[in-house]
Amino acid sequence: MKQLEKTKLVFGLVWEISPSYFFLLFINSLGYSAQILVNVILPKYLIDGLMIKESLQVLFQWVLLIAIANLVLAFIKKTTKRFLDVKEKEVYWHIERAFAKKIMSVEYQNLEDPYYLDLKERASFAMMNQGAVYNLITNFLSFLNQLLTVIGLIAIMFRLSWILVVSLLGMVGITLFIYRAFSKYQQQFFADLLPINRKYGYYVGLSFEKNLHKDVRLYGMSPMLGDLVTSYNKEINRWFTKFHRKQGLYMGLFQVVVVMQTIFAYGFVSIKTLTSGISIGDLTMYVSSAVSFSSAVIALGTAIVSISQMLAYLEPFAELMNVPDEEKLQGDKKLETVETIEFDHVTFAYPKTDKKILDDISFRINKGEKISIVGLNGAGKSTVVKLLCRLYKPEVGSIKINGIDIFEYDHESYLKTLAAVFQDFKLFNFTIEENITCRPVGVDTKLVEKLIKDVAMEEKIKELPHGINSLFGKEYDDEGVEFSGGQAQKIAIARALYKDASLVILDEPTSALDPIAEAEIYEKFNSLVGDKTALYISHRMSSSVFCDKVLVIREGKIEAFDSHKNLMLDEEGIYYELFTSQAKNYRLEALN
Amino acid sequence: MKQLEKTKLVFGLVWEISPSYFFLLFINSLGYSAQILVNVILPKYLIDGLMIKESLQVLFQWVLLIAIANLVLAFIKKTTKRFLDVKEKEVYWHIERAFAKKIMSVEYQNLEDPYYLDLKERASFAMMNQGAVYNLITNFLSFLNQLLTVIGLIAIMFRLSWILVVSLLGMVGITLFIYRAFSKYQQQFFADLLPINRKYGYYVGLSFEKNLHKDVRLYGMSPMLGDLVTSYNKEINRWFTKFHRKQGLYMGLFQVVVVMQTIFAYGFVSIKTLTSGISIGDLTMYVSSAVSFSSAVIALGTAIVSISQMLAYLEPFAELMNVPDEEKLQGDKKLETVETIEFDHVTFAYPKTDKKILDDISFRINKGEKISIVGLNGAGKSTVVKLLCRLYKPEVGSIKINGIDIFEYDHESYLKTLAAVFQDFKLFNFTIEENITCRPVGVDTKLVEKLIKDVAMEEKIKELPHGINSLFGKEYDDEGVEFSGGQAQKIAIARALYKDASLVILDEPTSALDPIAEAEIYEKFNSLVGDKTALYISHRMSSSVFCDKVLVIREGKIEAFDSHKNLMLDEEGIYYELFTSQAKNYRLEALN
Repeated sequence: MKQLEKTKLVFGLVWEISPSYFFLLFINSLGYSAQILVNVILPKYLIDGLMIKESLQVLFQWVLLIAIANLVLAFIKKTTKRFLDVKEKEVYWHIERAFAKKIMSVEYQNLEDPYYLDLKERASFAMMNQGAVYNLITNFLSFLNQLLTVIGLIAIMFRLSWILVVSLLGMVGITLFIYRAFSKYQQQFFADLLPINRKYGYYVGLSFEKNLHKDVRLYGMSPMLGDLVTSYNKEINRWFTKFHRKQGLYMGLFQVVVVMQTIFAYGFVSIKTLTSGISIGDLTMYVSSAVSFSSAVIALGTAIVSISQMLAYLEPFAELMNVPDEEKLQGDKKLETVETIEFDHVTFAYPKTDKKILDDISFRINKGEKISIVGLNGAGKSTVVKLLCRLYKPEVGSIKINGIDIFEYDHESYLKTLAAVFQDFKLFNFTIEENITCRPVGVDTKLVEKLIKDVAMEEKIKELPHGINSLFGKEYDDEGVEFSGGQAQKIAIARALYKDASLVILDEPTSALDPIAEAEIYEKFNSLVGDKTALYISHRMSSSVFCDKVLVIREGKIEAFDSHKNLMLDEEGIYYELFTSQAKNYRLEALN
Repeated sequence: MKQLEKTKLVFGLVWEISPSYFFLLFINSLGYSAQILVNVILPKYLIDGLMIKESLQVLFQWVLLIAIANLVLAFIKKTTKRFLDVKEKEVYWHIERAFAKKIMSVEYQNLEDPYYLDLKERASFAMMNQGAVYNLITNFLSFLNQLLTVIGLIAIMFRLSWILVVSLLGMVGITLFIYRAFSKYQQQFFADLLPINRKYGYYVGLSFEKNLHKDVRLYGMSPMLGDLVTSYNKEINRWFTKFHRKQGLYMGLFQVVVVMQTIFAYGFVSIKTLTSGISIGDLTMYVSSAVSFSSAVIALGTAIVSISQMLAYLEPFAELMNVPDEEKLQGDKKLETVETIEFDHVTFAYPKTDKKILDDISFRINKGEKISIVGLNGAGKSTVVKLLCRLYKPEVGSIKINGIDIFEYDHESYLKTLAAVFQDFKLFNFTIEENITCRPVGVDTKLVEKLIKDVAMEEKIKELPHGINSLFGKEYDDEGVEFSGGQAQKIAIARALYKDASLVILDEPTSALDPIAEAEIYEKFNSLVGDKTALYISHRMSSSVFCDKVLVIREGKIEAFDSHKNLMLDEEGIYYELFTSQAKNYRLEALN
């Protein structure tokens, strides 16, 4: 994307958030440059006054003027900076919020696409670690400050000689050229270092991750990890030794030019003092102008380089902000209740892969049916569910609900009709009630309490200090409660049931439950789910017995779709094999 | 801990890593202060030379001297800084490594103790986010730089008048007092803000976490999260508005004192110029001494405040480094093979909790026995395993292997006799082979290949681009391979089997496997485990059928410890209930 467009994107966002921000920026810059100019100009009069032995009163007036001017300008600078600091945070948060909102609303499949994941990572790295937005803004402020200062100083020095100005500009040009070359080298260096740093970061991180420690200890991996980290350290150190050598070279050159500039400024002004008889006050003024001038121009150049660098960092952010929202890619039909679900010759491979996970699948589910999906690991069971949740779009064929392609329904009403507990479901650091309702507290406490009873969590919740208002999780509050895997799963099931959706999907709903809790849930399931349509995926084959029909998937194709009873008739079928391979261990007991 | 002790700890670590570091620090400081002093003193001679209209040649010599002195000193500064930069990284890495090593070697139970977890978090936050070690070192450098500078400047100003020095010191004292007060306020402010910031961080983080997105989307939680984040933003903004107001006040005062100092310096030196007839060169020298002096003293004070702040940040790090290593807490007996395992009246509650997880448990396992541990969720099954792995120490009673308390065995030989697959086992971003051997590649490729065959992963591994040398995980390399839960579990089982341990522990070893893979593993288990002693925990009750004996735990007590066959005879027992509740669904089929 063009630099200009990115600048427009960021500053457009800032302008939306706070137009007064720009006004404050400008006032602050005026204060900044005015203070520098005042301290270049006013001392001249004091020194000239001293030279001609003015009265103490006059001299004192000059001292007072310098002091008051400094005080007033410093006040302006500090006050605007104070407001700017608050505004900067506000701006940063708004942009972060916009970023988070975008991530929550792009098509889900982007979030499993390595390209977008990487884009997101880089955008978020730029935002959080490189502080790109913050640095862009502060460098823009510095740019304004230095620009005004440079203009003022040039005006002063022009009074002495244009040769001084032009020569200084020339030398500053050389400085900036060196700086730019180094800056390019530096950028390349860090880009080259990135992969090594990532590995290093991963292995160092391992030592700090609590969840890994049992394995690390039992398998005695600490020396192996330590050696790896040390070897990456050494490699990175070799890189940096090279880098610092190069840096030394550039900085040496830089220093030579700066010293030359100082010699030139002193020399030029000294000669002028001797030859054209300007006063000692003028001498100090011109020398300090020249010195301030080069540092101001260098700061100006630095700001420009930094701005362009920050804009480069913001590239992935800008690209991400332009990814269309999921909602916009979907239709506007309203979905009320699910009457029929139809997979119509659906073929699907995950984006950017070749392997067909589902291969020409067709089946139909009617309202109120309880369907179990079974198959080997990797057969495509979870993919069926993900497609139905519209997390991905089938390449070939279509999925229809009530006879209409699911992508023709609008975002909101479609999601309302679905409730799901995924294998990797998550609870959030909200209260128990909020975790179930997914809304702020107090929405529907009675129903929540009933559901907690239904999933057999009543006793556990009663034990908690604040009942259903207890905070889940210790992420930011040590008082938060924690659940075992099975208990958390029960809360997730309650969440799915709370959402009054006409289609309930449960992917491995009881894997973490003990046999008795599992039996309880299964026994209650039909009453829990009521007349809703339900889809289950479970490795415990016994759950199929409860279902109206079983969808048997094998290597992406439908092997069979029938009731448990009928499927068991085919002793050659995979379903028979799956069921009996698990059942036989239990039957052993029956035979004993 | 005392400031001095922490300083000793950190500098002791630094001294161990690189004594030459301190030498470089000192040379760099000398260069730094010498440059400031040179630029205060030498211009005096140039200006005096101008005043008395010295020859251009003499003046040029002065200009040249200023330039060369600057160049040489800048060279010294830059060169030492370059080496220091490299050394600083080395020092940082060594300290990070020491930290990581400590975390990997403290008693495991510390890692589940909230106090130590918090300590670890804070220590790691200080290291990584606050850069405490780095800042301590750079501030120490700055402290040295400024100290030498201040001493030099005092020496110059004393030549003019001790009144100047004392008055300036007084005003600088006031400045530092204001700075210190503000710094205290600031520290308190951020401490108070911390809990709000943690919540804010958690909720913002949610939006970026890929694994949560399915739930966030399906339950329409985006607006709720957005509102929460905005409300925390607003709250934090209110805090910062207050903060910046206070900051404005302090900085205003600060500014007033600085301006007064400048007025005083100009005024005092001007009067001296008029009254005692010192030269204009001296005037500029003394004024610039005074101005440099206050900034140097302020920098010195800032460095001192920062050093004490960084030492405060490093408090948890220092505390953690003093936690004794696990190894040191254990005995020195060598363990060869496990002949018997005995729990002798073991009672256990997790550290800092009251609830007895195990309550007076006794049982004995003999060499070669295959034992299944069953019970409801939370009955204490995993705790038995954790105690046996010496991750915790029982409060009452003892665990004996071969008749000797397990804590009397030395660290290395004890861990060698154990292999375990935990419920939350982890694979690492190493090659497949390294994940199995936990050693660098090429140790025992044949055995690894055999084990892969044994756990039925041969085909999957063959498909991979580099076979067993393929990298697992995409953490730092997009080429890394990923496994399904079941496949990863198989590799973890292979890892446990690779370790030629005489006791194998499997906690929920087949939960993520499909029925056929599960049946395969079970069928092979006896041959896989061979004559090793084995402990299983599984919610799939059918696994008990394969075992010699079943340990039934109920609410922390042993309900029964017998063979499956015998246990099934007691139709009132919990084992019978557990088994039949799961089996009946499979038997339904047998009855149909």
